[in-house]
Amino acid sequence: MTALQQQGAAAKAASYILSTAGTAKKNAALEAIAQALERRQEEILSANRQDLANARDAGMRPALLDRLTLDEKRIAGMVEGVRQVAALPDPIGKVDRMERRPNGLVIGRRRVPLGVIGIIYEARPNVTVDAAALCLKSGNACILRGGKEAFCSNSTLTAVMREALQAAGLPEDCVSLVQDTTRETAKELMHLEGYLDVLIPRGGAGLIRAVAKEASVPVIRTGEGVCHVYVDQEADLDMAAEILCNAKCSRPSVCNAAECLLVQEDAAEALLKKAAPLLDAYQTELRCDGKALAILGARGVPAAESDWDAEYGDYILAVRTVKDLEEAISFINAHGTGHSEAIVTTNYFKAQRFLDAVDAAAVYVNASTRFTDGGEFGLGAEIGISTQKMHARGPMGLEELTSCKYVIYGEGQVR
Amino acid sequence: MTALQQQGAAAKAASYILSTAGTAKKNAALEAIAQALERRQEEILSANRQDLANARDAGMRPALLDRLTLDEKRIAGMVEGVRQVAALPDPIGKVDRMERRPNGLVIGRRRVPLGVIGIIYEARPNVTVDAAALCLKSGNACILRGGKEAFCSNSTLTAVMREALQAAGLPEDCVSLVQDTTRETAKELMHLEGYLDVLIPRGGAGLIRAVAKEASVPVIRTGEGVCHVYVDQEADLDMAAEILCNAKCSRPSVCNAAECLLVQEDAAEALLKKAAPLLDAYQTELRCDGKALAILGARGVPAAESDWDAEYGDYILAVRTVKDLEEAISFINAHGTGHSEAIVTTNYFKAQRFLDAVDAAAVYVNASTRFTDGGEFGLGAEIGISTQKMHARGPMGLEELTSCKYVIYGEGQVR
Repeated sequence: MTALQQQGAAAKAASYILSTAGTAKKNAALEAIAQALERRQEEILSANRQDLANARDAGMRPALLDRLTLDEKRIAGMVEGVRQVAALPDPIGKVDRMERRPNGLVIGRRRVPLGVIGIIYEARPNVTVDAAALCLKSGNACILRGGKEAFCSNSTLTAVMREALQAAGLPEDCVSLVQDTTRETAKELMHLEGYLDVLIPRGGAGLIRAVAKEASVPVIRTGEGVCHVYVDQEADLDMAAEILCNAKCSRPSVCNAAECLLVQEDAAEALLKKAAPLLDAYQTELRCDGKALAILGARGVPAAESDWDAEYGDYILAVRTVKDLEEAISFINAHGTGHSEAIVTTNYFKAQRFLDAVDAAAVYVNASTRFTDGGEFGLGAEIGISTQKMHARGPMGLEELTSCKYVIYGEGQVR
Repeated sequence: MTALQQQGAAAKAASYILSTAGTAKKNAALEAIAQALERRQEEILSANRQDLANARDAGMRPALLDRLTLDEKRIAGMVEGVRQVAALPDPIGKVDRMERRPNGLVIGRRRVPLGVIGIIYEARPNVTVDAAALCLKSGNACILRGGKEAFCSNSTLTAVMREALQAAGLPEDCVSLVQDTTRETAKELMHLEGYLDVLIPRGGAGLIRAVAKEASVPVIRTGEGVCHVYVDQEADLDMAAEILCNAKCSRPSVCNAAECLLVQEDAAEALLKKAAPLLDAYQTELRCDGKALAILGARGVPAAESDWDAEYGDYILAVRTVKDLEEAISFINAHGTGHSEAIVTTNYFKAQRFLDAVDAAAVYVNASTRFTDGGEFGLGAEIGISTQKMHARGPMGLEELTSCKYVIYGEGQVR
């Protein structure tokens, strides 16, 4: 057995104990984690300083350094997050579809944990605590594989959580960190069949695609977002400009940000005149098709073919005119990533048609795509936003980290 | 584009139309298919005779020849199956979790089709119609890849269904058959990313494992069944013997048949004395551990290590004594395939513990494992029995062939 297989076996064994632990015990463990994070804050900050020193030596960019940094406020945020997860309803144990069948069997479908969840993520150490808390509450053991830049921070955070788990009477192997941050071990994790029930990559599109391509264990793809705003000719163009600017510019680095404006050609000139000043405030680059460029002149640049599939994550917007709603729908279904798509229209039937025909996790009428988020959708917390159709789609809360089992109460029935 | 990619693109385009077709239209198409199957029965039987002649020339075994054979009764069974699917409730379009959020957005989760479903199966031509009907009703296009032995039958059945679809005003590409039954094309189907939303293998364990290992598109593993019956020392041993014999012998070739008896060691002698005569009636071979062999003498044979993981599909039963319930649970979680597991006991707490701790799609108390089936569970029909935890677990009916999308009704909200 390799070290990772041993870790997998330990997590599996822990998951069987955790899967039958009650809500009170899981909540007590989460509270123990919250308190331990507070109590051992100095230790955590010291480990983080080590990561930051290493990262600076390696020449890490300031934006990434910021994501790596922990301080008292961020630790307090983690602690608050853990307590919020503890306060959420426990999805485990609910039974639906229960009925007595004609042969007398009582059959019901019970919500159970998935088992062992692997999380592969990048340099943000808060994911370590965040993901562990969600897995724990949903009865799942987790194996965390964070980026090498955050290894000291992640090690300390994991040690703190493991000690708290043990103190709360749960196996410490409910949460563990992959001890080796080489690519080889990441690859081994993607093939840890028999131990890992699902692997969730959290991070940039490159990471997610690489994991989905390589892994032989089940993967949930999250957070790939080439999102569109379609502005119809029947639309409140002030509203449309506001929504577009919010969807693009309020936080361009996140996956629910819009990357492309589709505008019905008759409305293009009026819309762009209203939207350009708003986008100018963020110095947003506009990459345009021919018609849009004719309207925008020097304000735009010509789009390349690759712009219609680009996830910029930046103040750049692709702009394309379309003949009508159907062309917009076809374009979105061909070029979107199935994340979040919006129409701005005053026409009832067009709104309904867009909701029906666009193939995406979240489809909006007259609102910004930026709302696709577990908190905004009322799930309380999220482990990611699924852009696949299998198992879970859209923001994934606790329920999306579960499976089911049929329980059958008999009295000697045979078939 | 290869021929299969073209077929995938056509199926994808058809799926977008089908996904927004109403229940009445889908039911009309199913009725048109049922009528066309009746009307063109002679054509279907003639194609089947061709397959049978080829199979006999190739020296196919009688049991397989039987599975390949169509006759008027089996066609009537197919037709009846299609009408039953039409009569089932349509899962598409239901909305749950709908609420108005504090910011005024109205958000709900709508049930939608998965898109395009691939089915890889073996020599039974009835699967062609069965699977197509379930996919159609749940709003999914399907790409069928049957065994080469049934190619003439499957071609004719597919042609009949496609003509009926067109007559009912739906795209014929909602249902299509892979035209080339080589292994290369099967492999290409397993990698048809961008067109295939899920691939479901139906058939023997070898096929399923091969598909799960090879495929890069999402797969649902179905029908791998190494199922156990655990007989506790506190059990009605007459009931236990009946359940065991039913689980093993009523239809040993199916995936919900038991392969292994686990018996608490103090109950082993009494149970085996009651069970042996029942198992004798089917000349069931008993492959035993040391203690069971000491009880059974010449009636048993020694088990090899591989017997504890074997899916016999035959009148063979592995027999193993265990110290207690916990050993039984650990053994099942280590050696089962997560399909169906049963305990026979009169002890309430042991029953509850078994239900809680055994990790399988269906867990039974005092009943035969043979009930794991869409019909028996009240789902109306099934496309297979999932033994994985992601997406669907246990018998998969129409609802398990769906995904969801969040629909959001706004009034200009920005974040």
